[in-house]
Amino acid sequence: METSLSGWKRSCYCAQVEESRAGQEVTLMGWVQRRRNLGGLIFVWLRDRSGIVQLVFDSAQDAALQEQAETIRHEDVLAVKGIVVRRQEKDINKELATGAIEIAVKELKVLSRSENLPFNLDEDTDKVSDALRLKYRYLDLRRPQMQSTFMLRHRVAQLARRYFDEQGFLELETPMLTKSTPEGARDYLVPSRVHPGTFYALPQSPQQFKQLLMLSGFDKYIQIVRCFRDEDLRADRQPEFTQIDLEMSFVEEEDVMQVNEGFVQLVCKEVLGMDLPLPLQRLPYAQAMARFGSDKPDTRFGMELQDLSGAVQGCGFKVFADALAGGGSVRAIVLEGQSLARKELDRLGELVKTYHAKGLAWAVLGQDGVRSPIAKFFSEEQFASVCQAAGAKTGDTLLMVADASDTTVCTALGQLRLELGRRFGLIDESKFNFLWVTEFPLLEWDEEAGRFSAMHHPFTMPMDEDIALLETDPGRVRAKAYDMVLNGTELGGGSIRIHDSALQEKMFGVLGFTKEQAWNQFGYLLEAFKYGTPPHGGMAYGFDRLVMLLSGKDSIRDVIAFPKVQNASCPLTEAPCAVDDKQLRELGLKLDLPEGGEE
Amino acid sequence: METSLSGWKRSCYCAQVEESRAGQEVTLMGWVQRRRNLGGLIFVWLRDRSGIVQLVFDSAQDAALQEQAETIRHEDVLAVKGIVVRRQEKDINKELATGAIEIAVKELKVLSRSENLPFNLDEDTDKVSDALRLKYRYLDLRRPQMQSTFMLRHRVAQLARRYFDEQGFLELETPMLTKSTPEGARDYLVPSRVHPGTFYALPQSPQQFKQLLMLSGFDKYIQIVRCFRDEDLRADRQPEFTQIDLEMSFVEEEDVMQVNEGFVQLVCKEVLGMDLPLPLQRLPYAQAMARFGSDKPDTRFGMELQDLSGAVQGCGFKVFADALAGGGSVRAIVLEGQSLARKELDRLGELVKTYHAKGLAWAVLGQDGVRSPIAKFFSEEQFASVCQAAGAKTGDTLLMVADASDTTVCTALGQLRLELGRRFGLIDESKFNFLWVTEFPLLEWDEEAGRFSAMHHPFTMPMDEDIALLETDPGRVRAKAYDMVLNGTELGGGSIRIHDSALQEKMFGVLGFTKEQAWNQFGYLLEAFKYGTPPHGGMAYGFDRLVMLLSGKDSIRDVIAFPKVQNASCPLTEAPCAVDDKQLRELGLKLDLPEGGEE
Repeated sequence: METSLSGWKRSCYCAQVEESRAGQEVTLMGWVQRRRNLGGLIFVWLRDRSGIVQLVFDSAQDAALQEQAETIRHEDVLAVKGIVVRRQEKDINKELATGAIEIAVKELKVLSRSENLPFNLDEDTDKVSDALRLKYRYLDLRRPQMQSTFMLRHRVAQLARRYFDEQGFLELETPMLTKSTPEGARDYLVPSRVHPGTFYALPQSPQQFKQLLMLSGFDKYIQIVRCFRDEDLRADRQPEFTQIDLEMSFVEEEDVMQVNEGFVQLVCKEVLGMDLPLPLQRLPYAQAMARFGSDKPDTRFGMELQDLSGAVQGCGFKVFADALAGGGSVRAIVLEGQSLARKELDRLGELVKTYHAKGLAWAVLGQDGVRSPIAKFFSEEQFASVCQAAGAKTGDTLLMVADASDTTVCTALGQLRLELGRRFGLIDESKFNFLWVTEFPLLEWDEEAGRFSAMHHPFTMPMDEDIALLETDPGRVRAKAYDMVLNGTELGGGSIRIHDSALQEKMFGVLGFTKEQAWNQFGYLLEAFKYGTPPHGGMAYGFDRLVMLLSGKDSIRDVIAFPKVQNASCPLTEAPCAVDDKQLRELGLKLDLPEGGEE
Repeated sequence: METSLSGWKRSCYCAQVEESRAGQEVTLMGWVQRRRNLGGLIFVWLRDRSGIVQLVFDSAQDAALQEQAETIRHEDVLAVKGIVVRRQEKDINKELATGAIEIAVKELKVLSRSENLPFNLDEDTDKVSDALRLKYRYLDLRRPQMQSTFMLRHRVAQLARRYFDEQGFLELETPMLTKSTPEGARDYLVPSRVHPGTFYALPQSPQQFKQLLMLSGFDKYIQIVRCFRDEDLRADRQPEFTQIDLEMSFVEEEDVMQVNEGFVQLVCKEVLGMDLPLPLQRLPYAQAMARFGSDKPDTRFGMELQDLSGAVQGCGFKVFADALAGGGSVRAIVLEGQSLARKELDRLGELVKTYHAKGLAWAVLGQDGVRSPIAKFFSEEQFASVCQAAGAKTGDTLLMVADASDTTVCTALGQLRLELGRRFGLIDESKFNFLWVTEFPLLEWDEEAGRFSAMHHPFTMPMDEDIALLETDPGRVRAKAYDMVLNGTELGGGSIRIHDSALQEKMFGVLGFTKEQAWNQFGYLLEAFKYGTPPHGGMAYGFDRLVMLLSGKDSIRDVIAFPKVQNASCPLTEAPCAVDDKQLRELGLKLDLPEGGEE
């Protein structure tokens, strides 16, 4: 084995060897993908991040070299010098980009040997446990599809930086060791050694710093930035994740939306080769809920929600009547051309219950007549007009939900719609449907706390025409907030911020903060607002999620080089770990674990 | 005051209003830099990140508007519509880029009012305490020179990303929540809630992850990445700092150095408008020490160290004789054309003592004869040959250090040289002198531990020709390591890494690690090395320091948007802070502060 390249220089990447180089000498370096002996010849596939090229060792030419080649094994690292040789027509391998040539090796350096891998890289990833893949993540990352995912991630980051630079945004860095904020998710804390007993927090987002940068007059800010949330992990959550974070001064909603539309249009063009027509659809929150039962509608298929509240008026079905009497609604979706079986319908009934609906009313409009437990509550004529209102025809299944809360009705049907869309293959997976959801409610009622809380965050600006409602009917106030949605997933969102101290104080009042509480929590930002605050607003994208959708992956774990598993640990490094007592003493801390809880 | 722009759109930045727009209407937005009333006119300087433009309110035209303008104060935020008017020749203000025009305002929106600022932004920053500036950092950042510093920082980051992308580097992100490593500086720890009693560490550098990415075959990695060190802060240290971090596979030193030279050449061109000739000078460590007494020599001036060990041989001065007998050296620098006074020489003697020299020997070669306490130990002839060896002539001062440790001699004289260079204005401040220091020692002797420690880190590759010395004379082994130096400051450094397990094991042996200790500390990396490791090497720049030097600042605090002060706290957010007991309980921790130590 060689500890040095001794001046050997790589000519190009493996898959960059072109046919036109036939007859020339090249120097290539990479990993052994496979080795085959055939007659007196040894064939080796050499792999690097560009792809694969075939090496040939010919014993007739050089027996010593041949002997050396005999020792080559999977994943050994080689450097070779050889001549590019055109293959005979019959030997061309169409699977390889370099399949028309091979390298007749003249000289070989084995740079590093590999032991047997813990799993085969050719194997389907499904056959290898996630724990094993993540423990040997550096091997898992050798797979060509992993390599191309991270090249895509690189390109999207580059595009973001180039595009926003061209638009006048400045990349500005915000602190990682900062102050714990009681609102929002749980912070990761960092004990201070210089001030024992105190803690920094890792940022959940640079929200307040980017607002301060606007107060500083930087005008346009961007950062691709790590953020942290100490939450219990779901499939698509990670303790640390990356955000494309931006903020602009002297803007209104349309300005922020337009500059971001330009960005996703560029990404679609450069990454997917897709022309994205602009402007993107803007769907007010109320319509998104009424039509799709979701604030992040998947518009790749229809099956929109239909309001039956009018059509069922006066019917004898108590559930519907009570819902309407309680100020709620009756809505439906129609599964076209499918007559669902009872068992199936029961299962869907269970589904809507998990979204707090009390149950599912249904009608199967079969060729041989209507099957529905609730038909008896309707006159034939009224039932027909209900079907008409829903747009249901013979052969369809009509699925209805009623509740005194319209939000519950919409949400339950929205989830049902998604389930049926997936189930019956109604979703066109080739589509990339972007849209904006706008006019979000500013506040949501927090049952537990018995007060309103901010839907976005407490600095979100109400819509001009709704400001007066803050005092009379806060729940109806809409915000200058917008989410960008792609195929039913929230890619990012943002808002125009409050830049007026008086309005900000009113907002804190509605949220039930005393002035003192507000100042305790957000003092430095409120202080900053005193000294000339430009109107400003911004946006943040979940970068991991964006890359995941663009690369067609199912989990953000697939697009993070070294992700954590469900319990927030890293199988590779085994972080988090125990530390020395001395380290804790320096921080003014000691362990305080429940009996038997020490690891 | 207005809570909304109501559809007003900014035409351009303030300083972008060109004379050619005379007669046209523009909409501008920004902060009030100053207001003056003159006759019936009110003049307002409106400022944004681009610069300043003058607004004029004319009472003869619009009394109501004039009245509104009367209320304008420093740092209020305005939006105005007005007509671009060419100034009369006599009124042209050459200080402003827009001094040839002004804006005759037709309509004004006051977007935000400012209270009196805690300090005046026009004031010299020296007059405002650092604590106050940092508490109101968002105001401090409004200063034009601060704005341009961060624009420069943005540009350098963009250049790095563009250049390394063009060179085939992939931006790959490494974890922030990772494993504590006992080598190196103190880690910041992050307690885990899911696994109470265990801790993540924030990375001091992504060293091990970037090596793993090379094992994964990504071939070329770059990241502009936040790093953390819990050290006691010196003037140019911050708890968190930013690194341009890169790594390459299948390379030798020259490859890494060349790609980085290309980068700094581009930065010099684009940021300083300076042509940097390549290749940069390469100065082996031994020469850097012998000539400049430093491993990061400032080559903007001469005054190189001279070796007098030969010339003083056999002299009667015991200090010199002992130094030579002890295997050390006698070296000197010459301060040209200056006859230093005794008091001054004593002060310089104190200086060299802080660098562990025992004292300073000197000779003032005055026009009227030699003044030197040690001349008596030399024959006239020998003294003349000492002066000749040093290159000292009449009118100069000769400054000599002798010690049994040559490193001590060189270091003390190197520091003396810098002090004299600054003192006597010998440094050409307009120069940007880049160079490489190469062939660093692989190991340094750790007196305290009684063993060798790695000068760079334990994965640094020895030079091929020195590998055999690892077993016979480890202290003499040179490393494949290189530092890039600019004007006496280390901009960055790197090395080729060991990719051979056997050599790595030998290295750990020299460092006094048992195999078990090595595996405990670096197990996952050593495991990774088993599966086919390409030769690889890399580099890391202190990004803050690079920006500091390029922008001519004295402290990295000036180039970090929200820096910490000396005691690692943030005057703006007041981080670090106390947290709720509940938060600590969730983490399985309690405070353990010395009596009276709780804050």
